[in-house]
Amino acid sequence: MNAFMGDHFLLDTSAAVELYRNYAASCPIFDYHNHLSAGDIANRRRFANLTELWLEGDHYKWRAMRACGVDEAYITGKEIGDYEKFLAWAEVLPQLVGCPLYHWAHLELQRYFNISQPLTPQTAPEIWEKTCDMLSNPGFDTENLLRKQNVKVLCTTDDPADSLDDHLRIAREGTFPFRVLPSFRPDRYLQPESEGFRRAVAELAGREVIEINSMDALKRALARALDRFVLAGCRTSDHGISCFIYGSGNGDAALQKALQGQPLTLQEVADYRGDLLRFLGEAYYRRSIVMQIHIGAMRDVNPSLYHQIGVAAGGDSVGPVTDPYAIAAFLGDLEAMKVLPNTVLYNANPADNIVLSTMAADFAPVVQYGAAWWFNDTLRGINNQLDELMETGQLAQSIGMLTDSRSFTSFPRHEYFRRILCARIGRLMESGAYHHDMAQAGTLVQNICYRNAQKFFGF
Amino acid sequence: MNAFMGDHFLLDTSAAVELYRNYAASCPIFDYHNHLSAGDIANRRRFANLTELWLEGDHYKWRAMRACGVDEAYITGKEIGDYEKFLAWAEVLPQLVGCPLYHWAHLELQRYFNISQPLTPQTAPEIWEKTCDMLSNPGFDTENLLRKQNVKVLCTTDDPADSLDDHLRIAREGTFPFRVLPSFRPDRYLQPESEGFRRAVAELAGREVIEINSMDALKRALARALDRFVLAGCRTSDHGISCFIYGSGNGDAALQKALQGQPLTLQEVADYRGDLLRFLGEAYYRRSIVMQIHIGAMRDVNPSLYHQIGVAAGGDSVGPVTDPYAIAAFLGDLEAMKVLPNTVLYNANPADNIVLSTMAADFAPVVQYGAAWWFNDTLRGINNQLDELMETGQLAQSIGMLTDSRSFTSFPRHEYFRRILCARIGRLMESGAYHHDMAQAGTLVQNICYRNAQKFFGF
Amino acid sequence: MNAFMGDHFLLDTSAAVELYRNYAASCPIFDYHNHLSAGDIANRRRFANLTELWLEGDHYKWRAMRACGVDEAYITGKEIGDYEKFLAWAEVLPQLVGCPLYHWAHLELQRYFNISQPLTPQTAPEIWEKTCDMLSNPGFDTENLLRKQNVKVLCTTDDPADSLDDHLRIAREGTFPFRVLPSFRPDRYLQPESEGFRRAVAELAGREVIEINSMDALKRALARALDRFVLAGCRTSDHGISCFIYGSGNGDAALQKALQGQPLTLQEVADYRGDLLRFLGEAYYRRSIVMQIHIGAMRDVNPSLYHQIGVAAGGDSVGPVTDPYAIAAFLGDLEAMKVLPNTVLYNANPADNIVLSTMAADFAPVVQYGAAWWFNDTLRGINNQLDELMETGQLAQSIGMLTDSRSFTSFPRHEYFRRILCARIGRLMESGAYHHDMAQAGTLVQNICYRNAQKFFGF
Repeated sequence: MNAFMGDHFLLDTSAAVELYRNYAASCPIFDYHNHLSAGDIANRRRFANLTELWLEGDHYKWRAMRACGVDEAYITGKEIGDYEKFLAWAEVLPQLVGCPLYHWAHLELQRYFNISQPLTPQTAPEIWEKTCDMLSNPGFDTENLLRKQNVKVLCTTDDPADSLDDHLRIAREGTFPFRVLPSFRPDRYLQPESEGFRRAVAELAGREVIEINSMDALKRALARALDRFVLAGCRTSDHGISCFIYGSGNGDAALQKALQGQPLTLQEVADYRGDLLRFLGEAYYRRSIVMQIHIGAMRDVNPSLYHQIGVAAGGDSVGPVTDPYAIAAFLGDLEAMKVLPNTVLYNANPADNIVLSTMAADFAPVVQYGAAWWFNDTLRGINNQLDELMETGQLAQSIGMLTDSRSFTSFPRHEYFRRILCARIGRLMESGAYHHDMAQAGTLVQNICYRNAQKFFGF
Repeated sequence: MNAFMGDHFLLDTSAAVELYRNYAASCPIFDYHNHLSAGDIANRRRFANLTELWLEGDHYKWRAMRACGVDEAYITGKEIGDYEKFLAWAEVLPQLVGCPLYHWAHLELQRYFNISQPLTPQTAPEIWEKTCDMLSNPGFDTENLLRKQNVKVLCTTDDPADSLDDHLRIAREGTFPFRVLPSFRPDRYLQPESEGFRRAVAELAGREVIEINSMDALKRALARALDRFVLAGCRTSDHGISCFIYGSGNGDAALQKALQGQPLTLQEVADYRGDLLRFLGEAYYRRSIVMQIHIGAMRDVNPSLYHQIGVAAGGDSVGPVTDPYAIAAFLGDLEAMKVLPNTVLYNANPADNIVLSTMAADFAPVVQYGAAWWFNDTLRGINNQLDELMETGQLAQSIGMLTDSRSFTSFPRHEYFRRILCARIGRLMESGAYHHDMAQAGTLVQNICYRNAQKFFGF
Repeated sequence: MNAFMGDHFLLDTSAAVELYRNYAASCPIFDYHNHLSAGDIANRRRFANLTELWLEGDHYKWRAMRACGVDEAYITGKEIGDYEKFLAWAEVLPQLVGCPLYHWAHLELQRYFNISQPLTPQTAPEIWEKTCDMLSNPGFDTENLLRKQNVKVLCTTDDPADSLDDHLRIAREGTFPFRVLPSFRPDRYLQPESEGFRRAVAELAGREVIEINSMDALKRALARALDRFVLAGCRTSDHGISCFIYGSGNGDAALQKALQGQPLTLQEVADYRGDLLRFLGEAYYRRSIVMQIHIGAMRDVNPSLYHQIGVAAGGDSVGPVTDPYAIAAFLGDLEAMKVLPNTVLYNANPADNIVLSTMAADFAPVVQYGAAWWFNDTLRGINNQLDELMETGQLAQSIGMLTDSRSFTSFPRHEYFRRILCARIGRLMESGAYHHDMAQAGTLVQNICYRNAQKFFGF
């Protein structure tokens, strides 16, 4: 019986222990995709208690609580106090056997609060008290939480219409031991069929002071916003696309209709998206900006949750498999024009794993197959992603892990990934399926932990 | 070398052994989905021999025999005697390495007949003789076979036009130590495009004495049948849908055409299905009936088998992946109307696992992700289902296993599932990836084995 | 710590070691699907060095080198010398942790060259020198490379318009200790929508001296070519189909349009394919020729690679999932006509695994679920294929492995497969999940290694 989430957690061979301890553990973190609030960093926000830190906005935890039958009042209700909510979570956690939330929560208790007990209804009061004490300390403000995990770079997720004031303030201040860089995420402008499209265009037009009445104007506005992002240190863009459709036509017809609130055909949406994606791809290439693409999540599936709580309420799930021809056409068009930027492909539906990993390899090393995303960010999902990388020969160049999180204590997810990575390589070594050169394997691990990302994103 | 399917079968840690032995093994069985004949129970049928018990109607075994090259005469032929067929099966079984049929057959020999040898051509004669003897004993009638496995509730699968005479007789008699409840399975009425539709409607019309010439009339007839089922103790419905299509329109146009034998468009079928499913969903909700949905099996693929033997001949396979938008629209419509009943989603195509499990979580705990079904009812498939439940946080509330079988000796499939479940949790405990609280884990296991189902179905 | 790829490589139980050593290791190889050059065999070609042997045409290795960031000049460039290219490969190989190329390369060094060190930048010079010496020896010509691996039959891949001169020469010469048989691969004639269609038809017309201006004429020409193949010893056909579409109509309209260079509708292509596939299926059945079908690869995805290097450049990836209804319709049509030949289904997209394996079982034992193909030809992919075979009861009749390779030293892939197979069965035995009868299990393994294929193909 191993110790509960002890030093050897997930490390089931001595080679793995050695790899993790001597090479992976101390690597810095370049977290190139997350949803942290730059304002919370700039303001060195502190958290009153674990409920504020953990449960305020984490729809992963909300979802798990619902799955375990907790009443919504104890999840997102305004009437119930923080301690009661924490107790509800402590009731749920022991039920989450085999769930990444279980491992993440306990790694967070260990790494940030030095608490090695499991959180259960029994230990909850003591853990509450201890963590409240610690959180009241300035050593637990956002800056120090990030310091504790040796974070060097953070890429937040930002709309092109964003002012980037917080990012600029952090850079100006110059006292943080890490960089906080914006990511360019123009999702709202790629969905001419959506309700919020016109408002988005209006906001962008206002921000960039350009009248947007044509594709040309829209592209100029986005390019200007992108330049502004670059000045603020931006190294990457991101795109969330539920169902990847792609047309080779011009987007003007769709734009005109969308601006007039008329319904679009599927082909018009596809042409619009294709047109704008080709433009953006080239714009990224010209500015050495990485293009991240997240495909296949279905959002706001439960109408009650959506109406009650809004977006990011925990009512999201895995969408359809991706049409390989559509992705291939997009990447191929950019490649044929010699303007394919460094690109990372992520998928929500694991049936796309091999489709996207082998397609990334078609354009390697410019295109990467990205880390296990959202519903796949699990022990199994990470192992599956490593399988894809290993089988296609892309592991050694892989840019490793990211948090994709809203939480300031989510950085042990890097540790989780690193342990799994070391376990995989360690097992191959021990069984004689990989040659035993610890220094070489250690370098490979460190490259995956941070050096490859540093180089790929140009940090 | 472990003993052949001994006490530790599938239990590879001492934590797993403890969990299984002290918590799971003795749990009662609430088998909420199977295809047993209520008549065979009411009549306390006895079986002459293992061929009658095992091979008379089990298309899983037929299929495996064909895969191993056995001549059809020895499988479903009328000319070949029972003993010869049994010998053919005994030739095949040792070839089924890693196949669930191999494990099921041997668990059945152990649990019902106290035979722990493997069935091979060598042991076949002795096993035949011994089991013939035992089967001639009243202790091996259907009632006693079910008693032996501690079965508390059985939900059979029944057409709305069924008289339910056998169920009513069993209830009236009141001497069985378990309940035998009908399940409402209106598949025939949901397929207006199929050959048998008009006959089905005629049968239902006859049973409920309603002229069915409109959607309203059809709905009234189905509601009346459902009420009759409820009176007979029904707690659940079931729906087998090869390809889930769903429309938001009205079904009347399709019904009129179907009743006149005219071909339907895909959209008409979709609207008809959507209309009727919304009606049924609400009807279930009003009566606290669970809605089970089995998606994605392709039936009667081999035309020779179909013409020679008919349906359920073993010529079925896995169909296409499911459109997540269609399922989401259906569940979302019921949720928006606040009439979403307790629901269980099952899939034949494992590429749907994560689609349906994450969608179930969108509506948890009202919607459950169901047990590994049909082609997935294997060691690997069950582990995959557990992965989905664990990763989405739904394990602790899961309603566990069912047999889905026509066979009176298929109940060790619950044991198979329970061993796999205990093995999973046991490994997490032993490796330090789950905290070591045996009582808590044991309760969780027992909940999954039967208590959650008891509550979810309201038994 | 196990020895590096030693005797026990992949064999993690003593039962597995025994099965492999006593039963599998010495089995002959019937390699029923590969892309070897019959000319290179007929000419007893020798290779100057490992670069010529390994890197001249192996797009798997090219792809891995690109994934690791190697400059194209060192992969396919004409300017860079063989030794420099080998050093580039030696830099890459240690980075391919967990990749089948890593295991294949080292098995090849061990089995052909008696080199048990890992290939690294450090060992590269010594390995280069040693292998150059050995390759200069006649004992390393193509004939002897094949002899070393106990190859009995090779089925190459050939266009119907091929003269088969090399095959006929080998047969005439009669001194090779193995047979080299052509496979009938009419892909070019099944793609009326493709650029090369008219040239293909013209070549076939020329070869068979038939004017091809109708489906009838095309069918006659193909049948004549097939008869010529049969005379040259052909036992199998093969079909590579990216996206399986199938119509029940006549192909004449499509053929006429295609011959005139006019664009076709999807339905016309589907009808054409269906028409010709039905004809071919029956033609194979009449001549006892096995029909192999490879579904779902996407070729030439990267336009730069395609323009620079051409086809088979390493820019291929996994295509869409397959429509089960289309495959079912095709197999069902042949079955209904009682002309379904022995058939093997392979898939590139692993989401098709269970679709095709359960469909094969619908028509078993005439239809087989084939070996893990291309992107799936990995440790994981082979294990997944074995899972399908075991779960559906098809393992015992399985025709096992093939190389699908252009390389004369790729035959240790059979060893790789055999080790994985023995490991699977060995683990089941050791854990008590399969009865311990080594002779019976050994026979089963040997059947899979070669006897089933011998029988299925009629070698």
